[in-house]
Amino acid sequence: MYAPAGVKTSKEFPIPDSMKAWVLGDPGELKLIDKQVPVPKKAEVLVRIDAVAICATDLEIIYHGPPAMIQGGLPYNKNFTPGHEYMGTVVALGPGVDEYKIGQRITVEIHAGCGQCKRCREGMYTSCHNYGLNYGDVDKGHRANGFTTDGGFCEYQVNHINTLVAIPDDMTDEEATLVVTAGTAMYGLTELGGLVAGESVVVTGPGPIGLLGVAVAKAMGAQPVILTGTRDNRLQIGKELGADHVINIRKVNDVIQAVKDLNSGKGVDYVVECSAAPNGMNDAIKMVNRGGKVCLAAFPHGEAAVDIAHIVRNNIYVYGIRGEGKTATHRAEAFMKQKRFDATKIHTHTFPLEDLPTAIRYAKDRVEDAIKVVVKMKPGAAQRVAAE
Amino acid sequence: MYAPAGVKTSKEFPIPDSMKAWVLGDPGELKLIDKQVPVPKKAEVLVRIDAVAICATDLEIIYHGPPAMIQGGLPYNKNFTPGHEYMGTVVALGPGVDEYKIGQRITVEIHAGCGQCKRCREGMYTSCHNYGLNYGDVDKGHRANGFTTDGGFCEYQVNHINTLVAIPDDMTDEEATLVVTAGTAMYGLTELGGLVAGESVVVTGPGPIGLLGVAVAKAMGAQPVILTGTRDNRLQIGKELGADHVINIRKVNDVIQAVKDLNSGKGVDYVVECSAAPNGMNDAIKMVNRGGKVCLAAFPHGEAAVDIAHIVRNNIYVYGIRGEGKTATHRAEAFMKQKRFDATKIHTHTFPLEDLPTAIRYAKDRVEDAIKVVVKMKPGAAQRVAAE
Amino acid sequence: MYAPAGVKTSKEFPIPDSMKAWVLGDPGELKLIDKQVPVPKKAEVLVRIDAVAICATDLEIIYHGPPAMIQGGLPYNKNFTPGHEYMGTVVALGPGVDEYKIGQRITVEIHAGCGQCKRCREGMYTSCHNYGLNYGDVDKGHRANGFTTDGGFCEYQVNHINTLVAIPDDMTDEEATLVVTAGTAMYGLTELGGLVAGESVVVTGPGPIGLLGVAVAKAMGAQPVILTGTRDNRLQIGKELGADHVINIRKVNDVIQAVKDLNSGKGVDYVVECSAAPNGMNDAIKMVNRGGKVCLAAFPHGEAAVDIAHIVRNNIYVYGIRGEGKTATHRAEAFMKQKRFDATKIHTHTFPLEDLPTAIRYAKDRVEDAIKVVVKMKPGAAQRVAAE
Amino acid sequence: MYAPAGVKTSKEFPIPDSMKAWVLGDPGELKLIDKQVPVPKKAEVLVRIDAVAICATDLEIIYHGPPAMIQGGLPYNKNFTPGHEYMGTVVALGPGVDEYKIGQRITVEIHAGCGQCKRCREGMYTSCHNYGLNYGDVDKGHRANGFTTDGGFCEYQVNHINTLVAIPDDMTDEEATLVVTAGTAMYGLTELGGLVAGESVVVTGPGPIGLLGVAVAKAMGAQPVILTGTRDNRLQIGKELGADHVINIRKVNDVIQAVKDLNSGKGVDYVVECSAAPNGMNDAIKMVNRGGKVCLAAFPHGEAAVDIAHIVRNNIYVYGIRGEGKTATHRAEAFMKQKRFDATKIHTHTFPLEDLPTAIRYAKDRVEDAIKVVVKMKPGAAQRVAAE
Repeated sequence: MYAPAGVKTSKEFPIPDSMKAWVLGDPGELKLIDKQVPVPKKAEVLVRIDAVAICATDLEIIYHGPPAMIQGGLPYNKNFTPGHEYMGTVVALGPGVDEYKIGQRITVEIHAGCGQCKRCREGMYTSCHNYGLNYGDVDKGHRANGFTTDGGFCEYQVNHINTLVAIPDDMTDEEATLVVTAGTAMYGLTELGGLVAGESVVVTGPGPIGLLGVAVAKAMGAQPVILTGTRDNRLQIGKELGADHVINIRKVNDVIQAVKDLNSGKGVDYVVECSAAPNGMNDAIKMVNRGGKVCLAAFPHGEAAVDIAHIVRNNIYVYGIRGEGKTATHRAEAFMKQKRFDATKIHTHTFPLEDLPTAIRYAKDRVEDAIKVVVKMKPGAAQRVAAE
Repeated sequence: MYAPAGVKTSKEFPIPDSMKAWVLGDPGELKLIDKQVPVPKKAEVLVRIDAVAICATDLEIIYHGPPAMIQGGLPYNKNFTPGHEYMGTVVALGPGVDEYKIGQRITVEIHAGCGQCKRCREGMYTSCHNYGLNYGDVDKGHRANGFTTDGGFCEYQVNHINTLVAIPDDMTDEEATLVVTAGTAMYGLTELGGLVAGESVVVTGPGPIGLLGVAVAKAMGAQPVILTGTRDNRLQIGKELGADHVINIRKVNDVIQAVKDLNSGKGVDYVVECSAAPNGMNDAIKMVNRGGKVCLAAFPHGEAAVDIAHIVRNNIYVYGIRGEGKTATHRAEAFMKQKRFDATKIHTHTFPLEDLPTAIRYAKDRVEDAIKVVVKMKPGAAQRVAAE
Repeated sequence: MYAPAGVKTSKEFPIPDSMKAWVLGDPGELKLIDKQVPVPKKAEVLVRIDAVAICATDLEIIYHGPPAMIQGGLPYNKNFTPGHEYMGTVVALGPGVDEYKIGQRITVEIHAGCGQCKRCREGMYTSCHNYGLNYGDVDKGHRANGFTTDGGFCEYQVNHINTLVAIPDDMTDEEATLVVTAGTAMYGLTELGGLVAGESVVVTGPGPIGLLGVAVAKAMGAQPVILTGTRDNRLQIGKELGADHVINIRKVNDVIQAVKDLNSGKGVDYVVECSAAPNGMNDAIKMVNRGGKVCLAAFPHGEAAVDIAHIVRNNIYVYGIRGEGKTATHRAEAFMKQKRFDATKIHTHTFPLEDLPTAIRYAKDRVEDAIKVVVKMKPGAAQRVAAE
Repeated sequence: MYAPAGVKTSKEFPIPDSMKAWVLGDPGELKLIDKQVPVPKKAEVLVRIDAVAICATDLEIIYHGPPAMIQGGLPYNKNFTPGHEYMGTVVALGPGVDEYKIGQRITVEIHAGCGQCKRCREGMYTSCHNYGLNYGDVDKGHRANGFTTDGGFCEYQVNHINTLVAIPDDMTDEEATLVVTAGTAMYGLTELGGLVAGESVVVTGPGPIGLLGVAVAKAMGAQPVILTGTRDNRLQIGKELGADHVINIRKVNDVIQAVKDLNSGKGVDYVVECSAAPNGMNDAIKMVNRGGKVCLAAFPHGEAAVDIAHIVRNNIYVYGIRGEGKTATHRAEAFMKQKRFDATKIHTHTFPLEDLPTAIRYAKDRVEDAIKVVVKMKPGAAQRVAAE
């Protein structure tokens, strides 16, 4: 039985020594194997994973390798367990942890900074300068589960307590997996200044971050909130989540002008770019008014053309955000707990753990208009979830 | 004699009714004509112009028309007086002005916001939403002398008191014309956070803003300050103004790597891009470390290729700055008054008002390695100023 | 008929030359007289006043003189018209105004900064350094209607456009008078950082600002929101406006401990002090946790004892706020327009203009548990408004 | 010999197993004993202490017990080693440390936050919510050497790398002990906004923090910098460190008026209160102008009378600062390394380690006008250092 020295466990939550875990094989290949259950260290807990949502970045990692690998030029990372949008139950406490209790339900954010680089000291732990350094002699303690350390497509995982967000009893497992997505949108709006009540906001791209970006902006009082995209069914969900206006960019001649027409001709105060389109940033800077601000929450591959003169002449600020910094997940969860918006509108499908490849196919190919596909750790038949 | 109703004047500073003023003719053409001396309104003063520096934007305006024209598609603006980097003496006070005295020497910043749009109410007067609206029925009071309202290549001009910066007796006219240039650099460093002491800063491009950017960054305690450029003589001036390192980008294979080599391999905390090169922004985002910040103080014409993914993955923030907002000129002037750096190192030539075309030729063609060329309003022979 | 040069009017809204206005007589005395209808200047409009709420500061002014008088040692200001929490209809436009239309319903904030002092240039117009300077030779354009310039207990008043907030058709006159009160609370929460979602907030004192402070904090996602006070009926209204917990300080031994008991023993993140009690600030600094922040939105007369060591040792920041700065009224109005809370829960009584002395008596003596008493400009019998 | 598992040492810096250390006995009593040399853990180093300055807080601790004791009501802490303003040489590296090298000279700041509470996650590690929790089952990793963990009046001490500041070869040991004092002043100016160039600043109280506060404010470009105090010799040192004006409060009727007289009658933009006088805060809030800011860097014992109405009516913000947060020591050290001011002007006496009681007597009783008294770890006779 699992009983590492210095780790607190409970009879109510017996933990096996080994577990099922999906791991990377060759690019595009996932294998279900047995792995040792990992051991929490100081300020860490062991989480029994109850549900995991699939993110576009997971697909990137499964097909092209983790970001650290891509950036660092390291070989494709076999035996790595991806998955980062998970929630579960605390089942063991590392040394000194009393902030959480065994049996407590939590969801997670991704980044645990090293705590000792200049960015972590500033509170910018998602920009940790020791990103990815968490092994052997260069163990600086940074963790980004599912990116640089093993993630959530398995039964148990270790998390630093800084990455935990407590959730209420009446939040379902599926909804809880969406907190980090809302948290990313919240982080973007935080960096844009946070005071968006009564201000005009465009969100470009109705993917999961864009749709919850609409919901968070509206919860913070933004008005109007305008969503742009290419699929009417997703734009409709955006409306249900709080968009005052939606623009199908295939149905207008000029989306920049269409945005201005909806907002007195001047352009909006803020754009959160979530489309990842090559022209996403260039359109965004032209949608804002003089002194406006743009958050880049998505990106295209390769270089894209940008009208730099327009940025300078109009005193525009652009914020590239990575992840869900500045405890934005806690603020997002607070809104969700208070039922300010129904994030589950973007949850479309649920599959059991053992059907992860099917779940990934649904997410990747948008089968049956899939938006967020969730894998649940407890056995059960695949079931379609109505997204109304 | 000049004695408009409600305006205070003094016998010590008699003012004629008309004055000499250079005005735009056809593109590239300047004519010296007689104009009425303008009249200050509420919260405005009349400035006797004592010296004006020539800026690259002046050349733009003279050859292509004022920015408002270019952006607004208006016809080329004949009879407009350009020139925005000037200083002089307060010689008349509009109604209610007691903040300045007749006889007081001042230098100017460019933007006087309308005071009533959302940006001005936020203190962001350089992003005024009524930019250029200062005539007839749509007079919102915005002024940007030399850009949207008549400027300084003449004998007298009206300035809103918000644009005035008092200068000490021992600051020469020539040095005083450089305050706004230092102020622009100061504004950039302000938006980057202002707390650059001990932080690493790269300035790209040793033009006037770049060179004074080096000086201001150093005065604020930045270390190291690294300047990149293509001309050794200008890089040398950068060293004299405080650069710890200079990099001639023609002499290194990879300027990004060269910057990193000077700073522990990680990239710097801040870049102030002043080169206006098409690759300026893209290089800048790669010179900063994770969580770093870039100020765009210059821009190329047309679109340029930018690696947006790099901005997002590294949580980089980019600030396009227009002008010299947030009272940065006052902070720049404070450092200059306290002799923290010698801005006159970038002043190379002085000509009399009537030789403005020659002065412009020197500035435009960089005759005799001209950097800052100043026109002085008082008669006198052209004289070369040693820049050592 | 009213038709000043340069001012736009409309036949739909005919304006008389003179109007009824209440003015100060001896301390405590108000007289209803005929006054000239004032004339809007540049960037100003004429407002037909439709409703005015009575604030504790009005009572202060009526009994002790306007703040400018008190502070400046000037004689008691006879013929001054108080009243600052008003709303109405734009009926005439000063020169150059096109931001608002004749016939548009608006509510107001109090402070119009001079636009030219250092604070106004920073966007801190409620801290204008030319506060009160708006007459004769020292006219710097500052206005604070009801404080330093004539206010709203009359039929028409001039307002700078910076003080206007557009309101929707479905917002009643009475509700619209409460926007500035919510705006004051919003300004306090803005200065505390604005990112209060999921953070713990105590509001002390269930007066109008305190009660709407609860509502605004909750709308921004704060949790828990704790309200302290001495009257159960007001605390009950606080609950209806979003307080998660209320504490009747007469029923607990130690309100500081009672707050901590409701929040894991640590103290809360933020306190908005609205009680004006002599121990209000000292209690507030002890209710927050290490690094917590306190907003002082009310104050006792005279000096009060404060444990300064506690502030320093615990890195506590204290923000004295005056009024409703940083366009907080616009953000408050956005929440109210979106029906995030029902501000009318604090509106208890309405009287016609001619019954102002009765209305003031109700407000001052809290007759029938009066909280907000409104005077409506259109004739009508006094009517009690249920506050359920 | 000292060779703990996992710790890197070097033959060049042999370390004994035990060392001399001063420890608390009864109140006011210090004993020199032998102690084990402590062992650095993850992200910690062992520092050979080369010099320690004596701070007023040390006297507090020696005579009344450490702050944690005082606040927590714990018994007087016998065997505790005080001393927090020290510098030295890194002589051993805990597991994983490669940010510093053995043999490197460093100085220290005091607070190492836990890295996991909400304040540490915000970058506010001096407000750590786990302050003092660093032992046994509640070890959250917080350290404040000399306050809650053993300090520097000994030969070796363990420091978290977050508390280290690298110093250049040409900075003397004595000067290096003053970095943290300058860092405290820098932290105060940081919280006041950091952009003090050309702004007016009053520093009250010419103790070490006040005097270096003058130096730091001036290095950042403040003007005028006004220092108030009671001792002409200290005020003179303030002048040498950059004060534009000094006011001996015993020689003026009204120090508030005297400050205003030096600054156009309006009051200054910022006050850094370092006097710890009972009226310190109340005077400070009256020295600033409307919208001004006050930093409390010192405090009297017990409660003091404060005019809260003045704070609210004038929109004044007050920042109680604890220690040297937000990496302010690094910025202070950058200015000192660049020779922007000569901190050693406040260093008056040096004694050897074994004469600590004498050194403390000099500091406590201000013998020979002592300001900063330093204890050096290497043997040597007591020597007076000229403070000119």
